[in-house]
Amino acid sequence: MTDLRIGAIGCGYWGPNLIRNFIEIPGAQVIAISDLQQESLDRMMQRFPQIETSTRNYTDLFEMNLDAVVIATPPATHYEIARNCMEHGLHVLVEKPITLNSRDAADLIKVAEANNCVLMVGHTFEYNSAVRAVKQMIRDGELGDIYYIDAIRASLGLFQTKANVVWDLAPHDISILRYLLDADPISVSTHGSSCVQEGIEDVAYTTLTFPNNVLAHIRSSWLDPSKQRRITVVGSKKMVIYDDVEPLEKIKIYDKGVKAIRRTDTFGEFSFAYHYGDVVIPYIRFDEPLRVQCQHFLECIREGKQPQTDGHNGMRVVQVVEAAQRSMKSAGDTVLVNSNGHGDPADVRQSRELAHA
Amino acid sequence: MTDLRIGAIGCGYWGPNLIRNFIEIPGAQVIAISDLQQESLDRMMQRFPQIETSTRNYTDLFEMNLDAVVIATPPATHYEIARNCMEHGLHVLVEKPITLNSRDAADLIKVAEANNCVLMVGHTFEYNSAVRAVKQMIRDGELGDIYYIDAIRASLGLFQTKANVVWDLAPHDISILRYLLDADPISVSTHGSSCVQEGIEDVAYTTLTFPNNVLAHIRSSWLDPSKQRRITVVGSKKMVIYDDVEPLEKIKIYDKGVKAIRRTDTFGEFSFAYHYGDVVIPYIRFDEPLRVQCQHFLECIREGKQPQTDGHNGMRVVQVVEAAQRSMKSAGDTVLVNSNGHGDPADVRQSRELAHA
Amino acid sequence: MTDLRIGAIGCGYWGPNLIRNFIEIPGAQVIAISDLQQESLDRMMQRFPQIETSTRNYTDLFEMNLDAVVIATPPATHYEIARNCMEHGLHVLVEKPITLNSRDAADLIKVAEANNCVLMVGHTFEYNSAVRAVKQMIRDGELGDIYYIDAIRASLGLFQTKANVVWDLAPHDISILRYLLDADPISVSTHGSSCVQEGIEDVAYTTLTFPNNVLAHIRSSWLDPSKQRRITVVGSKKMVIYDDVEPLEKIKIYDKGVKAIRRTDTFGEFSFAYHYGDVVIPYIRFDEPLRVQCQHFLECIREGKQPQTDGHNGMRVVQVVEAAQRSMKSAGDTVLVNSNGHGDPADVRQSRELAHA
Amino acid sequence: MTDLRIGAIGCGYWGPNLIRNFIEIPGAQVIAISDLQQESLDRMMQRFPQIETSTRNYTDLFEMNLDAVVIATPPATHYEIARNCMEHGLHVLVEKPITLNSRDAADLIKVAEANNCVLMVGHTFEYNSAVRAVKQMIRDGELGDIYYIDAIRASLGLFQTKANVVWDLAPHDISILRYLLDADPISVSTHGSSCVQEGIEDVAYTTLTFPNNVLAHIRSSWLDPSKQRRITVVGSKKMVIYDDVEPLEKIKIYDKGVKAIRRTDTFGEFSFAYHYGDVVIPYIRFDEPLRVQCQHFLECIREGKQPQTDGHNGMRVVQVVEAAQRSMKSAGDTVLVNSNGHGDPADVRQSRELAHA
Repeated sequence: MTDLRIGAIGCGYWGPNLIRNFIEIPGAQVIAISDLQQESLDRMMQRFPQIETSTRNYTDLFEMNLDAVVIATPPATHYEIARNCMEHGLHVLVEKPITLNSRDAADLIKVAEANNCVLMVGHTFEYNSAVRAVKQMIRDGELGDIYYIDAIRASLGLFQTKANVVWDLAPHDISILRYLLDADPISVSTHGSSCVQEGIEDVAYTTLTFPNNVLAHIRSSWLDPSKQRRITVVGSKKMVIYDDVEPLEKIKIYDKGVKAIRRTDTFGEFSFAYHYGDVVIPYIRFDEPLRVQCQHFLECIREGKQPQTDGHNGMRVVQVVEAAQRSMKSAGDTVLVNSNGHGDPADVRQSRELAHA
Repeated sequence: MTDLRIGAIGCGYWGPNLIRNFIEIPGAQVIAISDLQQESLDRMMQRFPQIETSTRNYTDLFEMNLDAVVIATPPATHYEIARNCMEHGLHVLVEKPITLNSRDAADLIKVAEANNCVLMVGHTFEYNSAVRAVKQMIRDGELGDIYYIDAIRASLGLFQTKANVVWDLAPHDISILRYLLDADPISVSTHGSSCVQEGIEDVAYTTLTFPNNVLAHIRSSWLDPSKQRRITVVGSKKMVIYDDVEPLEKIKIYDKGVKAIRRTDTFGEFSFAYHYGDVVIPYIRFDEPLRVQCQHFLECIREGKQPQTDGHNGMRVVQVVEAAQRSMKSAGDTVLVNSNGHGDPADVRQSRELAHA
Repeated sequence: MTDLRIGAIGCGYWGPNLIRNFIEIPGAQVIAISDLQQESLDRMMQRFPQIETSTRNYTDLFEMNLDAVVIATPPATHYEIARNCMEHGLHVLVEKPITLNSRDAADLIKVAEANNCVLMVGHTFEYNSAVRAVKQMIRDGELGDIYYIDAIRASLGLFQTKANVVWDLAPHDISILRYLLDADPISVSTHGSSCVQEGIEDVAYTTLTFPNNVLAHIRSSWLDPSKQRRITVVGSKKMVIYDDVEPLEKIKIYDKGVKAIRRTDTFGEFSFAYHYGDVVIPYIRFDEPLRVQCQHFLECIREGKQPQTDGHNGMRVVQVVEAAQRSMKSAGDTVLVNSNGHGDPADVRQSRELAHA
Repeated sequence: MTDLRIGAIGCGYWGPNLIRNFIEIPGAQVIAISDLQQESLDRMMQRFPQIETSTRNYTDLFEMNLDAVVIATPPATHYEIARNCMEHGLHVLVEKPITLNSRDAADLIKVAEANNCVLMVGHTFEYNSAVRAVKQMIRDGELGDIYYIDAIRASLGLFQTKANVVWDLAPHDISILRYLLDADPISVSTHGSSCVQEGIEDVAYTTLTFPNNVLAHIRSSWLDPSKQRRITVVGSKKMVIYDDVEPLEKIKIYDKGVKAIRRTDTFGEFSFAYHYGDVVIPYIRFDEPLRVQCQHFLECIREGKQPQTDGHNGMRVVQVVEAAQRSMKSAGDTVLVNSNGHGDPADVRQSRELAHA
């Protein structure tokens, strides 16, 4: 089995992590890298002398007999670059969000099919051992009926000047929610505020309604003194907190529950049965999620499989963000999530303009 | 100076704390107590033999030459009892919420004026040393411009069967927000879910808009595995976390900030100046907030002063809860906070019915 | 069944807690209290009007037809007061340490027997639900062989001017260690330092050797910026941390272990089998330990039973402290624990002098 | 300025960190690596293709025109390898402990002088920003007089089969204590226990006496369910906790203090003035300590400077460990720290035997 030949486009904040992983995984070689900044390329070439060549023009990669590319460029450029690469027969792993509008995402899905390419989106949390453990508990019925899920992703910093906090942080939580609940949200309401930079929301609160009356809420903030990354899943039998900031005890399972028991003798009044039980912190063998994701990408290429976080998955997440975006612009009005794959034409125009700014 | 003669109405969950405080404060005596349950009365009389008498009928207290009453009965009964007591010339300290609709609250304010009574509401957090310290920092400009405030109040349990989680928990946070920002919210949007008991929301997310574009958000939950009571105030200069669950380090001040600096040479683009600084946990002499509140009540009676948490204060909080309530019933629609003192007639009818249920 | 008539001697720091408990427990009445300070008596009489009478001379209590006394006076006075009370036929619950030397403790045991009195020492932690849960795990073999136990008791403050930190804090941990291991330590080595006050050690490190090569270590400090009260029990199968400062999660059981497996093929070298497993925080119904202790005292009186923390138990703890004391005075030399019940004559003289200082 | 040519001997647990740092620091090149295990060499060569060559025989490095070597082999081999390298004119950075007996350390110091070589020991914590910040506070008198220092280094695992926990973990804390107090301990008493493996202590408690009656204590454990690395410095004015396990808030300064004030009117009794103040968590720019250490090594070579952690420093630490070792073998007897540079002949023989085992 010969090594898969990988090219990496984008060597800024996240790209180096992808490059490191593909260098370390057996069965792949990073042949070439591309970035607009010569300085970023130099830094990578010095750190990883294994890489054969670098270029500021990503289309040079089409001449290098590559199997696949990984794209970690600014989101506004994802669509054009991913499309171009697939049209040149390259499998694509693109960072989240797949595109800045769902129409483009739908188009990428078609291009992938037409060119027989693997199209995968870097929704890393679906490859995270802790998230997968929570999913398993839900699937096994261990938590009972899911009542609601609360998600927080906050810290200070890493402001972006082109995207707001919803585009930047919420895709992680939307991806996790969809994965855990195995469903798309029906509607979304988002309230945001642009505290530091006019017109770029840096704080946002998003309420989502999922089927079966499951409520979910996402707090996204670039303006919080303490770093928080936490998912609380409340079920009728048990409750789980997944705290990604904890170095070791990432998951805590609370054997607490509340049950309403209808007592017929009291004219429809309820009485409540609480139970307080043990808390369990399960031992989780923690593999680097990005490693698992990269290995999955290689496996899909070799075996012709559809990735877990494929183009449809990426598009669904974008549709939810689009709805949140529209809600936020109308002061929190409830917006139905568009699930027919066609974003608002205005969004499409705007996101394409961004790509050429 | 003779001792003020106090009567206590309601000896259930919170009443005993009030009774203990008035017994321990010099200058007051708890003369009589009242409750519908004989068992609660017996327990109190045994624990506090200082109390002269007890009765299941609170109107008996009118014959005892009292100066004031403290009311800790179910919220639906506040209006009728407080009104009756003031009409008999008694000063009143009533637990939060003052009433279940703002029209009744407005009425109580009038009755207090007409009878020359002190009317005070038990919004304890305005008497909390930690909350007061945060207020002082805001007033002194130490935090800079306030960007937004995030409030969480969650735990497992203490379900109520007549009020939802917004009526039960949010008044604390609304009271704190109004106090810290020295302003009323303009509008409210609340999303809630009734997980355990049909029709009684046990989880709710409330977004509030305050003047000067200050955003605030309250998470209220009876269904959370970990007890949380936290206020995060984010300003342009500093950020503060007040964590009421922390036994000692209740306030943490983060000397972190983000500033947008317009640079004219870059076509309106912003660049950001961060600063990371020390964290300070100020030493706060912690007096029991309820003690401070009870002392303030006695002081207002003696000196004829208006309490900090007077009837208007209590009414404003109720108006915000009413708006949150209406928003929640219409799936999160933004609702303007009614600040003319007149609740919805339907609310009034409903709350009065509750009182006689 | 008539109520037991209790007298309380000593109303300073700890006495009020004992008084409150005996007032609240059905089946007992606090008839009289005694203290040298009139102010302390007044405060108690105001707080608990149930108490019939107070006196500055504890021997007045002998005329009041009492059944028992609880003694919470300075340790140096325990011997004389307890002896006197028992000689007047009163059952005695005395605070820890029972006496300041083991010879006096032995004498009190004889007096108790001669007068047919219950003699109990207030080693509260033996009545603590969390400590009892750990004991149960050890007894059930859940932890495997016990390797060692580490105990920390530190905080800032509550300096005493007559006793050092070993006499003040270590008895708690010695009592817990004896209870958990069901054994007396064989030898003790203590290193201490008098930082603030000459001649009064405020920091001490005590190493104890128990049978079966079980090592134990106690860190005692009045000079630590953070309050710590923690017992770590390390066994061959599991490890347990009991953290008394944690409000809810007092016990954490770690399913981690290390085993040496002798492999004959490698010339006596060992290889190690680790296992990392779940962490469990068991739900513990937490009753106030002092309440349980007080109830046990009443029960022993009624049923003529020997208390769990009887005079012998109290004397054994004092013997360990005496050994620690001697070791500390000789710069940490290892000292065998005297278990014949006879303290050093010099200690006896000194402790009796303290009583009359 | 040409790059310094570095060779690395030992590519096991710690070596790769040294190699990575010297590769990333400008001004140095890792030319060659050596290890007994071919597998370790292969792994390194694949990860760092910049390295020119590898060999299982470290003496091959003498033919490569190197400037310096970094030695991260088992401690028992440090003496022979370091000596050999310096005799071939190479500057040496050797991992801690410098040798397994102080006589060998003294010899290395002489060899370094004779061959004009830089001899540096990898006591990384002296290059740690947090430790340096604490040192600065002590030096500036901010903490007042130092009363005592408590150090804990515990976790589960990483058992060694040839060295005990004192040799493995305590050198870090001894190095920190010497650095903070700018002094050598006068005497040492160590109690240890061999729980898992006969003859190899895995738990140890070490008490050290420093000049000016400063007490220090080190708890070292391979058998603790929770990872702890904490230094508490208690001074007369302030107290500091340096917690290396905390990701962000590594240093907490407590403005708490206790002072004894002699009051002449009370016959030599003391009264205490406490002050409780703010807690400050200073912002510390955190550079990787190993990076700082490696840069310091290069700087010493270029400028002919004596390293902060030079041979004498390394030898002093070994002398303290030797004393602890002797104390532990005699059940905790107090042992004076030998500061004349000559270890016990038996130790020398044993450590040299280990090197050829």
